[in-house]
Amino acid sequence: MPDASPHVLRLDLSATDGGARTGVVTTARGTFRTPAFMPVGTRATVRTLTAEDLERLGAEVILGNTYHLMLKPGADLVADFGGIHGFADWKGHVLTDSGGYQIFSLEPKVTDDGATFKSTYDGSSHHLTPEGAVEVQQQLGGDIMMVLDVCPPLPSPISTVRAAVDRSALWAGRAKAANAPARAEGSTQAQFGIVQGGVDLALRTESAERTVEVDFDGYGIGGLSVGEPRHEMLPALAATTAVLPVDQPRYLMGVGDPVSIVESVALGVDMFDCVLPTRLARHGTILTSQGRLNLRNARFSRDPEPLEPGCTCPTCSRWSRAYLRHLLSVNEPTVARLTTLHNVHWLLGLMEQARQAIAAGTYDAFRRSVVEVWDEPST
Amino acid sequence: MPDASPHVLRLDLSATDGGARTGVVTTARGTFRTPAFMPVGTRATVRTLTAEDLERLGAEVILGNTYHLMLKPGADLVADFGGIHGFADWKGHVLTDSGGYQIFSLEPKVTDDGATFKSTYDGSSHHLTPEGAVEVQQQLGGDIMMVLDVCPPLPSPISTVRAAVDRSALWAGRAKAANAPARAEGSTQAQFGIVQGGVDLALRTESAERTVEVDFDGYGIGGLSVGEPRHEMLPALAATTAVLPVDQPRYLMGVGDPVSIVESVALGVDMFDCVLPTRLARHGTILTSQGRLNLRNARFSRDPEPLEPGCTCPTCSRWSRAYLRHLLSVNEPTVARLTTLHNVHWLLGLMEQARQAIAAGTYDAFRRSVVEVWDEPST
Repeated sequence: MPDASPHVLRLDLSATDGGARTGVVTTARGTFRTPAFMPVGTRATVRTLTAEDLERLGAEVILGNTYHLMLKPGADLVADFGGIHGFADWKGHVLTDSGGYQIFSLEPKVTDDGATFKSTYDGSSHHLTPEGAVEVQQQLGGDIMMVLDVCPPLPSPISTVRAAVDRSALWAGRAKAANAPARAEGSTQAQFGIVQGGVDLALRTESAERTVEVDFDGYGIGGLSVGEPRHEMLPALAATTAVLPVDQPRYLMGVGDPVSIVESVALGVDMFDCVLPTRLARHGTILTSQGRLNLRNARFSRDPEPLEPGCTCPTCSRWSRAYLRHLLSVNEPTVARLTTLHNVHWLLGLMEQARQAIAAGTYDAFRRSVVEVWDEPST
Repeated sequence: MPDASPHVLRLDLSATDGGARTGVVTTARGTFRTPAFMPVGTRATVRTLTAEDLERLGAEVILGNTYHLMLKPGADLVADFGGIHGFADWKGHVLTDSGGYQIFSLEPKVTDDGATFKSTYDGSSHHLTPEGAVEVQQQLGGDIMMVLDVCPPLPSPISTVRAAVDRSALWAGRAKAANAPARAEGSTQAQFGIVQGGVDLALRTESAERTVEVDFDGYGIGGLSVGEPRHEMLPALAATTAVLPVDQPRYLMGVGDPVSIVESVALGVDMFDCVLPTRLARHGTILTSQGRLNLRNARFSRDPEPLEPGCTCPTCSRWSRAYLRHLLSVNEPTVARLTTLHNVHWLLGLMEQARQAIAAGTYDAFRRSVVEVWDEPST
């Protein structure tokens, strides 16, 4: 049952175009524009980058990870340094996930109380409850906290998906309650619930309704992009956003490929995160307006062009495909940062294009143009 | 026998203090100050850094490596991109080594003609002659080229050191001759000879005399810091600099530890290169005015200080030892660049202090202060 406490996060929509929306989220930290892509800074850094790099790229929100940071270096240590913001000297927004996704990938022992799992660092045993996940995230000091949820892989038996919905709803209420004292004392950390339900439309609807009933500052959409094809993901997503409040942000968790982003924005999603642009970059796969470019391909060995002609990123401003390919082929670590700078710049640019298209009322044409390129075989 | 062609590189000494000298080297590219430390950019990048990073650090000369670049991506490819300068977009000076040091570490088959060695990349067989090393370096386009020399490890039998002196002298003449046509056509690439002779003072003197007789734009001092203790290296160095022309630069190859640098500057050395600051950085060993700092040490886990208090490098300006140690302990690649930025900044700063001390006539006190810290056990 919704309580009377005001939300600490506000979404002001400036334009809609079909189901797509663009606007500005305001928190105690400041503002960020939506639709937003949030680079993933699992261990208090976006892999290969610094806070300075992210400022230069114009990133507005980055992720931090409860599972990893509670184990190393420990949430209390991060808290002593002013949370992720102080620790990494990052002045933009931080969203912390609850650790659920990582923990459930470790096949934990789960009861109604919480999940027991082994650390991937040293094999030690840990128990995380919905309340504990709140406490850790309070220490990490993110601007947006996620509740602990149960995230089954797909496909899973319907009984498993149903159990995840029930337990996630139970845990959502407990997470809200666990954060209530801090909120009563003036905490400005926003808290998002998470909708589960697999690709079962009725379960998605039910999970969304039960999560909204708890009343959060915004809503994560979890349990998608976990093995199912896109044609099953999008209807489940639509069933979810249909239930979520129009005036609060919707965050599709763990999704970052261009087609899924533009299709999901069309269904009313505001926020995305994914390791895709950074992971691809480290393997030499470059995001461009023409699709993926495999920098290891021998045909780039004497190519004087930048990764993407016309791109204004720090990498394309100075270095050729030939130089970057050389660095990649001799395993020079310099290149991983340069390709990451480009890929993150490119994906942030895609979001800017989406925002502009929504504002201009041309979103559907934009969406189709992205799908046309990215459903093609990669170059 | 010296020929009549003018040198394409000029050293203007502005101050001397005992044997130490400070000044400015002028080439067709511009100027750099001496004593100079040159970060090593083996494969057309300083490991973990970009040309932009090096500009920010105020580096004035970087090294490139003939052996590595002739194999990957190939000197002709680098030439097509405007040499190392164009390839890496580096506007400062480049010095290219001849590949001799790397090749002799591979136990090559050596005749008077040249050295036959196997590529560490694919095992393919290659033959490098003094003339070939000139040709490759002409393609790499460095501002300073080094002749191919024979560099035996220490200790070696005196007959081995003697043979290296003889063959290096033979090769020096051929390298000079090989570059003569380019010089006649107006090439502004400087060429340095290399003195060998191990730690035998008479052989050092002889090798220096024979190398000077060929008449180069400057002189490398090779075959030191290859296994011998410092108390054997310094007399051999003194015997060498005593013979080298006062008005031309002397470059002690492969030496970069603080004590050896300040002792060698006292003996009249102007230029240094070494992978030490960058390699140490990647392993979490930090150069500071108090000596080495092992960032992996648990006592830094909650240390809010920068790597070196008061340091103005990009890393110390923003991040704590605790944050950097965390990144190191979870193998985040971000940290290798940050510690490298610091270590290179620190060593460039040491050279600036040396130049200022020479100009102020206080070099010996400066030298002793460095030795006092760096001969102590590391912290």
